[in-house]
Amino acid sequence: MPKLWNETIEAHRRTVHDAILDTTVALVAERGLLAVTMSQIAEKTGIGRATLYKYFPDVESILMAWHSRQVAGHLEHLARVREHEGDAGRRLEAMLETYAQIHHQMARQGRHQGFGPDLIRFLHRSEDVVRTQHQLHDMLRGALADAAQAGQVRDDVAADELTAFCLHALQAAAVLPSKAAVQRLVALTLAGLRAR
Amino acid sequence: MPKLWNETIEAHRRTVHDAILDTTVALVAERGLLAVTMSQIAEKTGIGRATLYKYFPDVESILMAWHSRQVAGHLEHLARVREHEGDAGRRLEAMLETYAQIHHQMARQGRHQGFGPDLIRFLHRSEDVVRTQHQLHDMLRGALADAAQAGQVRDDVAADELTAFCLHALQAAAVLPSKAAVQRLVALTLAGLRAR
Repeated sequence: MPKLWNETIEAHRRTVHDAILDTTVALVAERGLLAVTMSQIAEKTGIGRATLYKYFPDVESILMAWHSRQVAGHLEHLARVREHEGDAGRRLEAMLETYAQIHHQMARQGRHQGFGPDLIRFLHRSEDVVRTQHQLHDMLRGALADAAQAGQVRDDVAADELTAFCLHALQAAAVLPSKAAVQRLVALTLAGLRAR
Repeated sequence: MPKLWNETIEAHRRTVHDAILDTTVALVAERGLLAVTMSQIAEKTGIGRATLYKYFPDVESILMAWHSRQVAGHLEHLARVREHEGDAGRRLEAMLETYAQIHHQMARQGRHQGFGPDLIRFLHRSEDVVRTQHQLHDMLRGALADAAQAGQVRDDVAADELTAFCLHALQAAAVLPSKAAVQRLVALTLAGLRAR
């Protein structure tokens, strides 16, 4: 087959794939996870049921794919933030703020869409999420090591430990009520990193 | 029935109950969750299978009861720590240190006993654990509010937000390799609380 054909097919598959994810999340938000069927998803996406099953075996795996896409987007966002700040201290600060606000927003969105704790646990079980956690840890550890070398954060605690502290502390963003509260959380975390 | 009889029965039930929990955890640590049956638990506890089923319907619910007992013990431990320190700043410090070391030790024990992530997620789903989280939050918020009033921690961030920051940050203790690393984590968290 000519290359163009393959590319077109690939673009088409990607479009259908993304449409399935978006439709499913919208339906789950509207009706709740248990009330959504594969037939409804197919109908609302505008594809046949048989086609839908070529992409995904069940509703849960669609939601998992949606979650992986979200998380991948957030990682790219963080990587861009890292590139756009010059100074190691500012770069770290921007990354922590971005991570915390993303975490806050995802939790908010999950609550808004009526994702219960079981579904959230299920989504967090995927191997993609574990891989992402490692990437996130590495990315942040790099920023912390740079900032320590630049004298912007303490260097008497190993970068791996500082990273674990940050990542856990900022997860509190999920339970905070506002963006302003998340900013205060970031300030607390940075104060911990900077003090001696 | 006379009161003494009831008390004896109650003490007996409590002894059997506790023996079931201890036996089950030992068996799961030895053989893995999936390999342990109710029959083995009954035999090793020294009771009949029918008696065991009067206490618990399955292995998972025994482990959940064991986990609740552990968590209740830890909360009592924290409450004692709170009572034994005089100064608000020292009291807070002792509570954070105790909480972090407990968290570290439980994670270590869980890994040692071969508790996989699915079992841990299952144990954390119990309503007891949710209630405990609230009690823990309240206990810590009280200590933080006292310390803020005594000028030992910053008072420009609400005690609820400081509590969320602490509880999340200290959960990093679960992934840290040593007690010394946990102490450094507590120091980072305290530095965040104290800075302005």
